[in-house]
Amino acid sequence: MNNTIETILNHRSIRKFEDIPVTDEQLSTVLTAAQQASTSSYMMAYSIIGVTDPAKKTELAEITGQAYVKDNGHLLIFCADLHRHTLKANEENYENMKPNLENTEHFLVSAIDAALAAQNAAIAAESMGLGICYIGSIRNQLERVDKILSLPTHVIPLFGMVLGVPAHSPNQKPRLPKEAVYFENEYRDHTSELEAFDKEITSYYQSRSSNNRVDTWTDQMLRRFTKPMRMDVTDLVQKKGFNKR
Amino acid sequence: MNNTIETILNHRSIRKFEDIPVTDEQLSTVLTAAQQASTSSYMMAYSIIGVTDPAKKTELAEITGQAYVKDNGHLLIFCADLHRHTLKANEENYENMKPNLENTEHFLVSAIDAALAAQNAAIAAESMGLGICYIGSIRNQLERVDKILSLPTHVIPLFGMVLGVPAHSPNQKPRLPKEAVYFENEYRDHTSELEAFDKEITSYYQSRSSNNRVDTWTDQMLRRFTKPMRMDVTDLVQKKGFNKR
Repeated sequence: MNNTIETILNHRSIRKFEDIPVTDEQLSTVLTAAQQASTSSYMMAYSIIGVTDPAKKTELAEITGQAYVKDNGHLLIFCADLHRHTLKANEENYENMKPNLENTEHFLVSAIDAALAAQNAAIAAESMGLGICYIGSIRNQLERVDKILSLPTHVIPLFGMVLGVPAHSPNQKPRLPKEAVYFENEYRDHTSELEAFDKEITSYYQSRSSNNRVDTWTDQMLRRFTKPMRMDVTDLVQKKGFNKR
Repeated sequence: MNNTIETILNHRSIRKFEDIPVTDEQLSTVLTAAQQASTSSYMMAYSIIGVTDPAKKTELAEITGQAYVKDNGHLLIFCADLHRHTLKANEENYENMKPNLENTEHFLVSAIDAALAAQNAAIAAESMGLGICYIGSIRNQLERVDKILSLPTHVIPLFGMVLGVPAHSPNQKPRLPKEAVYFENEYRDHTSELEAFDKEITSYYQSRSSNNRVDTWTDQMLRRFTKPMRMDVTDLVQKKGFNKR
């Protein structure tokens, strides 16, 4: 196994950091790595906001309910960005661009571009001994996050990432069996693989050092999905000009 | 610079492969790496279809208009997947799940989960000396791709990835200046950085070995966005139960 694969397989989400800022050099490497990711038709349809202002970090920690959004080595917010693509457009051009700016296709393109860049950033950071955690909970109050970052039309925050020197080493969470995620030539029923995984997960939750409980993966998902969650993301996304048609 | 960052920075999309299949061991490593990526609230909301059937590969090459979708070491299709989350649901549960299954939030979650897994797969493959190229053009005819892969409700194809032993070594395409992608604390106007980038891109297109032309990035984007593209992705996505509310 080479070093890169070792880094990838060693991933765990880090939620406690030493009080040591990410250095400018580390940040620069992380960003260069992010930018080198593949991008759909050269659109580079994302932006990254680094949040250093303590007041903004405190507000984001409150929105997410996660103290480590304030207490970390650095905080990045990854945004879908179709704004810079419109800058050279006159009024007529802009009207002609709208079907693309507002369709599902380009909402997907920008979300995927942002995610590919983010994962390169994550791997680069981890390869330098930093820990990371994705922060989906900025979508708890997406409109507020959007305002904090002063994002223009056609730019929306998607998720955050905290980085820093790890101050703990959590267990790795088991993944679904490969046979429940990878299929050859066509989709395949994988109920029996999920049942096997549920048994594995029950042991995992019972044996792990903290937050010990009785649970299965399918039950956890059932509970999660039966409570409507972040239904207002739709509105903010559309208000900013994405995903409207 | 460590090996991992070197691998990341050395990325170029590979569109010509030697006639050598990806080995089972390589594929297994690539998939394990993909699965180790972060996933939103443990949802693991994606599936991967490996396409080996020559008839299916030929049809996908026709849909995408890209011969290397047929001629490669292996072809993966990354899908958003909320299907397995519904398997334990009775009729009442399922009705209660629908707001989540159908909202923007979980469309985003599944697209981002798939993209993070894919980028881990890409980096792992590249670290082993394989080349990769993302295939967005499966969205040219998403409904046809969906049928080829026999995907159930709440599963949609998002993008493909070809892998294999590289048979060429293309130039790297310049990226936007860091100052046009990364901002501190709030979004910032970056018109002047884009102008500088346009000059760089003009030289790049004039100097590169193949497909030499006069162009700028902003002009390219203007042309691209003023022609409505893949407007029907919206319909298929909604028909499969995603992004409806």
